[in-house]
Amino acid sequence: MFIKNAWYVACRPEELQEKPLGRTICGEKIVFYRAHKNKVAAVEDFCPHRGAPLSLGYVQDGNLVCGYHGLEMDCDGKVVSMPSQRVRGFPCNKSFATLEKYGFIWVWPGEQSLATAEALPVLQWAESHEWVYGGGLYHINCNYKLMIDNLMDLTHETYVHASSIGQKEIDDALPTTKVDGDRVMTERHMQNVEAPPFWKMALRGNHLADDIPVDRWQICHYYAPSNVHIEVGVAHAGHGGYHAAKDKKVSSIVVDFITPETETSHWYFWGMARNFQPDNDELTAQIREGQGKIFAEDLDMLEQQQQNILNNPERKLLMLNIDAGGVQSRKVIDRLLEQENQQHKIQNMNIA
Amino acid sequence: MFIKNAWYVACRPEELQEKPLGRTICGEKIVFYRAHKNKVAAVEDFCPHRGAPLSLGYVQDGNLVCGYHGLEMDCDGKVVSMPSQRVRGFPCNKSFATLEKYGFIWVWPGEQSLATAEALPVLQWAESHEWVYGGGLYHINCNYKLMIDNLMDLTHETYVHASSIGQKEIDDALPTTKVDGDRVMTERHMQNVEAPPFWKMALRGNHLADDIPVDRWQICHYYAPSNVHIEVGVAHAGHGGYHAAKDKKVSSIVVDFITPETETSHWYFWGMARNFQPDNDELTAQIREGQGKIFAEDLDMLEQQQQNILNNPERKLLMLNIDAGGVQSRKVIDRLLEQENQQHKIQNMNIA
Amino acid sequence: MFIKNAWYVACRPEELQEKPLGRTICGEKIVFYRAHKNKVAAVEDFCPHRGAPLSLGYVQDGNLVCGYHGLEMDCDGKVVSMPSQRVRGFPCNKSFATLEKYGFIWVWPGEQSLATAEALPVLQWAESHEWVYGGGLYHINCNYKLMIDNLMDLTHETYVHASSIGQKEIDDALPTTKVDGDRVMTERHMQNVEAPPFWKMALRGNHLADDIPVDRWQICHYYAPSNVHIEVGVAHAGHGGYHAAKDKKVSSIVVDFITPETETSHWYFWGMARNFQPDNDELTAQIREGQGKIFAEDLDMLEQQQQNILNNPERKLLMLNIDAGGVQSRKVIDRLLEQENQQHKIQNMNIA
Repeated sequence: MFIKNAWYVACRPEELQEKPLGRTICGEKIVFYRAHKNKVAAVEDFCPHRGAPLSLGYVQDGNLVCGYHGLEMDCDGKVVSMPSQRVRGFPCNKSFATLEKYGFIWVWPGEQSLATAEALPVLQWAESHEWVYGGGLYHINCNYKLMIDNLMDLTHETYVHASSIGQKEIDDALPTTKVDGDRVMTERHMQNVEAPPFWKMALRGNHLADDIPVDRWQICHYYAPSNVHIEVGVAHAGHGGYHAAKDKKVSSIVVDFITPETETSHWYFWGMARNFQPDNDELTAQIREGQGKIFAEDLDMLEQQQQNILNNPERKLLMLNIDAGGVQSRKVIDRLLEQENQQHKIQNMNIA
Repeated sequence: MFIKNAWYVACRPEELQEKPLGRTICGEKIVFYRAHKNKVAAVEDFCPHRGAPLSLGYVQDGNLVCGYHGLEMDCDGKVVSMPSQRVRGFPCNKSFATLEKYGFIWVWPGEQSLATAEALPVLQWAESHEWVYGGGLYHINCNYKLMIDNLMDLTHETYVHASSIGQKEIDDALPTTKVDGDRVMTERHMQNVEAPPFWKMALRGNHLADDIPVDRWQICHYYAPSNVHIEVGVAHAGHGGYHAAKDKKVSSIVVDFITPETETSHWYFWGMARNFQPDNDELTAQIREGQGKIFAEDLDMLEQQQQNILNNPERKLLMLNIDAGGVQSRKVIDRLLEQENQQHKIQNMNIA
Repeated sequence: MFIKNAWYVACRPEELQEKPLGRTICGEKIVFYRAHKNKVAAVEDFCPHRGAPLSLGYVQDGNLVCGYHGLEMDCDGKVVSMPSQRVRGFPCNKSFATLEKYGFIWVWPGEQSLATAEALPVLQWAESHEWVYGGGLYHINCNYKLMIDNLMDLTHETYVHASSIGQKEIDDALPTTKVDGDRVMTERHMQNVEAPPFWKMALRGNHLADDIPVDRWQICHYYAPSNVHIEVGVAHAGHGGYHAAKDKKVSSIVVDFITPETETSHWYFWGMARNFQPDNDELTAQIREGQGKIFAEDLDMLEQQQQNILNNPERKLLMLNIDAGGVQSRKVIDRLLEQENQQHKIQNMNIA
């Protein structure tokens, strides 16, 4: 069960150039391609002629051509031509709303008529020259909600990421969690601690001393359907922490777009946006490499956790205070799923 | 569901030398080996003693010896000996009719008593010194009927094989399709076109100019149960095309034996028989390499098409004029399957 | 269906050092680790917090720490701490009785209260300075009973291990089989035969002539639940065979501990204990390498046999005189399984 009427990151622009891209999102097998004026189109990845995947085809004059027998489809899923055929009666493919914004390509896997640009999250960092972003993509064999849990409970850093961003003080600083509509926020502040290695590197990158105590913060924001953005940073201790002046801190946003593929797999678009040294490409590469290694440490844990849960369907998991962020996020998801189901029922009644 | 009472290519002679060969054909797990006088024997690949695969054994005095505990079986599936055992009461294995002819080893996976040499297709090219054959074998994870469709609708050449045998004019030349009993023929003729790269190579191989317009033909013959042979060629334009004199054309037969393995996989014995420069081994090797590359281009498309169809069982595929060859071939298959089922029912009634 | 109330070899000590070890035994996913005073602990490999596998964690102060969020469990499966949590109400994990003896770590996958040290087999060779052991571990994708069959019917040596320990005379020397409670013994003696290559190597290793006839013996002992130990050896012919004086023979025990994983896979701890030249490490390594190669020859046969049996559920296998050892061993297993089921029913009645 997925929230279908919502925007998900489908891919990065660099994944979608001349060739079409096939990707399954929320259980829908979709082919993405660049139509007229570079606009991204998305239709079912199934040729109505003989069932070939259209993603093995190519783009011509803004339309998608099936690589098997040349059926040509437009961005609305309508067949516009096929060699020596009259195509007027051909069935249409489902098409999907897309947007290209903030350096990502977004898709709305549900009812196209409900898709509005306003429903897209507002990402200020993505449009400001004071910020820079670097990131990557992992395919992970676990349900997307296990990744939301992971990101909304950062006590795991102490164990999974002990050598980079983990530190014992995370365990001692209990988080506080708030729910605001379809958003959940869970935050944690640590005072007067030693910066862990990743943050020492960032301090040096911003020309700040890395050998004096810092105040550290982690503010996790869950946005429906399945995005988690985490404000993270350290400031030299005693200068106000999160609110410290710019020359006393390094801060950034861990940007996580979690796109379900199947019930037991998802696409994980991870990255970091920062507002210090935005023009330092070397630092961007260094941070990205570090973050890529850190997030790879979660992969095995999450995939084996998924297997364990599948093999023990009768076991109930605990919901502790540290899990509040994940638990509340799942409640939002359940509520939105219920709403979609109700709308769906009403629609079907109106049709009948 | 497979037509069981028919000859299928089981393997090439070079695959069956000293060692037994295990291969599943039409759902039957069979072990092939060379018995007395080099005759090919085929029995169930299951040792009646403890279920070991007999294909892991060896051949001795014309019998098959199980590699686990030495049970010895003759070519009729009868156990003839086992160390220190009286084997008279041992159950028999099912055995299968085989033939070795035309450079192939054939098997009849159904009722052995119905197998006759007359039921084998007549392959004149395989017994004439004026012809030479080269080919290979691919294992493909799709139902065999998708391969029949592929070969009976060559408009796919324009898309899948664009750099070798495809050309836009194929799309424009509509085929005509005829059914004659258990045979289907679909043919296409193109006049005054440029030869595509593969055919230019063949023209040069036959010492003919490759830079002048040609007439090109493709005559696809489906034979039950699942063989497709395609007469193909080009002639210098205006000399009669298919009927042109030998010194004005290059022509050959694309020879495809399609042997079902399971409902979603088959053995694809592909090759080409030609009657020009039959003694030129280098040319044979060159053509075979080219054809091998061309046919490998179909693999990914066919396997992903199979997956798409499995994942969308409710979707109906289109049947266009270009699909007539495949559609008619499937009708022959359905009719023969129905006949086999009826015979089977009558047999069971007689037994009861 | 597995006999749960019995000792199985879980692992070799060298597999269990600092890091925990996850292994599935008789369908139970277990994590093993070294607790206080190096004692081996074994609990369910499932963190009660969020289902992470505990085997990805680490050991601290004799307890097992989950590598995801730091839950700490003792060797009884009780949660003893978790950062910033009161853990009194946390559910317990199932724990398992273990023993470390004879150079192996043993586990009792059933009811812990029934586990007694007395139930462990007595292995005299493992505690004597006159003996030395070398061995290894294979993971094999077949039911453990197929391995018992394999080891209780050594006629397969002639076919599977023709170049090392097989010889035609094995087939001719019919075995005799006896049942004694939960034990089965099947033995075979050959007189005045040529020693096969493996035994020639062993004779030379013990400074005995390898080019004169020998008497050879194989005495297979099945112990419940699934261990097979085989007394094997050769003596210069005419000196009493199995009972010959020490300076006329080489003898050893093939030590096989067969630990079920799932219904179609098992852990195979193979090895050899010998009482000649016990201090010759080079010879130990040489024998172990030879035995490892020989036992690897069984792998493919057993795994394909398993597949064949799964694919032909309706076919009954034969039970010949040579199979008596395996057949009787299976009867012991069936009887013990039935006993366990009865006890289980009685327990459930008492609870109800």
